[in-house]
Amino acid sequence: MFDTRISNLRKTIQKLNQEAFFVSNFYNILYLTGFKTLTADEREAFVLITKENVYLFTDERYVEKNSKLRITNYGLRIKLIEPNKGFLTHLEDIVKDKKITKICFEADDLKFNEYQRIKERLTNAVLTPTRQIIVREREIKDEEEIGKIKKACELTDQCLKDVLKTINKDQGEKEIALKIEMWIKKNYLELAFDPIVAIDANAAIPHYNTKTGGGKVKNGSVILIDFGLKYKDYMSDVTRMVFFGKQNNDVLRAYNILREAQEKTVDQMFRFTKLSEVDEFCRKLITDSGLPTYPHSTGHGAGLQIHEYPKLSFHSSDNKTDGQVVTVEPGIYIPDRWGMRVEDTVVIKDGRAEALTKFSKELLII
Amino acid sequence: MFDTRISNLRKTIQKLNQEAFFVSNFYNILYLTGFKTLTADEREAFVLITKENVYLFTDERYVEKNSKLRITNYGLRIKLIEPNKGFLTHLEDIVKDKKITKICFEADDLKFNEYQRIKERLTNAVLTPTRQIIVREREIKDEEEIGKIKKACELTDQCLKDVLKTINKDQGEKEIALKIEMWIKKNYLELAFDPIVAIDANAAIPHYNTKTGGGKVKNGSVILIDFGLKYKDYMSDVTRMVFFGKQNNDVLRAYNILREAQEKTVDQMFRFTKLSEVDEFCRKLITDSGLPTYPHSTGHGAGLQIHEYPKLSFHSSDNKTDGQVVTVEPGIYIPDRWGMRVEDTVVIKDGRAEALTKFSKELLII
Repeated sequence: MFDTRISNLRKTIQKLNQEAFFVSNFYNILYLTGFKTLTADEREAFVLITKENVYLFTDERYVEKNSKLRITNYGLRIKLIEPNKGFLTHLEDIVKDKKITKICFEADDLKFNEYQRIKERLTNAVLTPTRQIIVREREIKDEEEIGKIKKACELTDQCLKDVLKTINKDQGEKEIALKIEMWIKKNYLELAFDPIVAIDANAAIPHYNTKTGGGKVKNGSVILIDFGLKYKDYMSDVTRMVFFGKQNNDVLRAYNILREAQEKTVDQMFRFTKLSEVDEFCRKLITDSGLPTYPHSTGHGAGLQIHEYPKLSFHSSDNKTDGQVVTVEPGIYIPDRWGMRVEDTVVIKDGRAEALTKFSKELLII
Repeated sequence: MFDTRISNLRKTIQKLNQEAFFVSNFYNILYLTGFKTLTADEREAFVLITKENVYLFTDERYVEKNSKLRITNYGLRIKLIEPNKGFLTHLEDIVKDKKITKICFEADDLKFNEYQRIKERLTNAVLTPTRQIIVREREIKDEEEIGKIKKACELTDQCLKDVLKTINKDQGEKEIALKIEMWIKKNYLELAFDPIVAIDANAAIPHYNTKTGGGKVKNGSVILIDFGLKYKDYMSDVTRMVFFGKQNNDVLRAYNILREAQEKTVDQMFRFTKLSEVDEFCRKLITDSGLPTYPHSTGHGAGLQIHEYPKLSFHSSDNKTDGQVVTVEPGIYIPDRWGMRVEDTVVIKDGRAEALTKFSKELLII
């Protein structure tokens, strides 16, 4: 698997007329080598891919024999970062030894300062900025990746089922979000992002921050629940609506329209080649019913990160391709009153979209 | 408070012979303006500090009237990032309008690609890289910041007290770590970092990853617990040892030596001016007893981030200064057998170190 990814990247390196690729992005390193450091932001590893080798620069914590962090991909050439031999020295040695003169790097990840330090050391090599190379290769998921996302989605469905049973009057948004988090953590899984639980007028704010919110379940409440989890580094993303007690006709009508639009978009995705058309199609189903459009895209790619390629928006220039995993998540938002959104994570297979989150969308009044 | 910070930074800008400072780092934006975006890594805000104004570039989610994310610092000039007017256009307008020709930026944060895009747009301005400017100003905490860290430490003590009561035979490392996390989340607080619970030989690995670990509490177990929490964005960090059942003399002797070394280092910190001397002092107390030195620094600064300035290591060139908050955390590690570490978060006040985490270090056999 890693061999295939490296070999694909080597083809890209050649197309770019380069000799080596310097990788700094945490998720791209994970994707290419299976290796990850403790945190995504402390810069504890870099990777250099040359024609013959894959070098991993990291420190002894990730190598020592007892370490649970130990590198398990034995195809990697480990260059140990030590107090007396930093990664720049290792890099310089390799570049000299292998007579590498053209190296490309991730301009959308490498910091200016890191770039400067590398440039100062590699006086005989030309550094070329690239953008969105590996994230684009990550866009098409293989069977193993899809399997992990599928499993993440199954667990998400199970979590929803268990948590919804416990929702009751006077519960706060934060309290419900905490239950979701607890469920995930008790299963020794990770959140994909902080759960959003938004009630009534709060649900009309598409990017609501539950942590600072004070909404509570009341009679007639419209409850929006948007969350996801990570299974073996791969993420799910789902949104469902729950209604507490009797609802007025506006809410019921809007929910029907929303649900139909979301389901129809998933069902009909086979008809489109451009993802911008999918966005347009979904949006139109809602506005044609006289309801307002939503101020966000219809979906986004998901995988190792919660927002990745492809884009599923009006502005997207991405085509639908087998192996993509995207969310489909239209919404209807009536400011100061209520909001609703329905979202599935879907995989593209034989040109069609298959929903991996399968929790029912039937009107759920509790 | 923000006024003081901005005014201090303006003095630095002047010293650097610059006219404006472009801030991209999430924590530095939070420090200077009190504003934070939903996530630290999605680049949803930038700040430009000029002689007269503080401009914040962000999107409507953080501005709309119902948003709980709404900016509360009304001294900021908000420049709304919109589909038709990106932050570069806003930045270009300001720079032209105010005739700014010299702008410095955070080279240790700004990505190469971001730098290039800014440079291309600001053709009449010179961009100058800086390093560690704002993080150095963050090093000295004011009363309000110290108050928050103190509160974080009090809550940490309380969490330890509650969780330790529940430790029992056959419990796993992950299970104990989960209890800590649950306690913190139930109080609607955040983890400072993933808790480390390491038992017996696992405790001999200084940067143990509990998430991948399988250690269990057995008779005679040595249990290391290292965790921290965030209170209003400020962090605590503590490590305590718990012993399950009868211990052998090696363990008891080592714990006494470790505890004395840690306490003596905190007590005697007033004697030193350089933090490297503090590191040396602490380390020597352990090696003089014939025990091995520890393969990490004696401590680190903590605040908005869990690792910040000053450095408290052998290589540190930092001086002890009032207002610094650091950890003091020597350890003794016997590979394949056991490890131990004792850690407090301390504040420097009148040249002395005052421990803010106060949980007892008495030998605790449960």
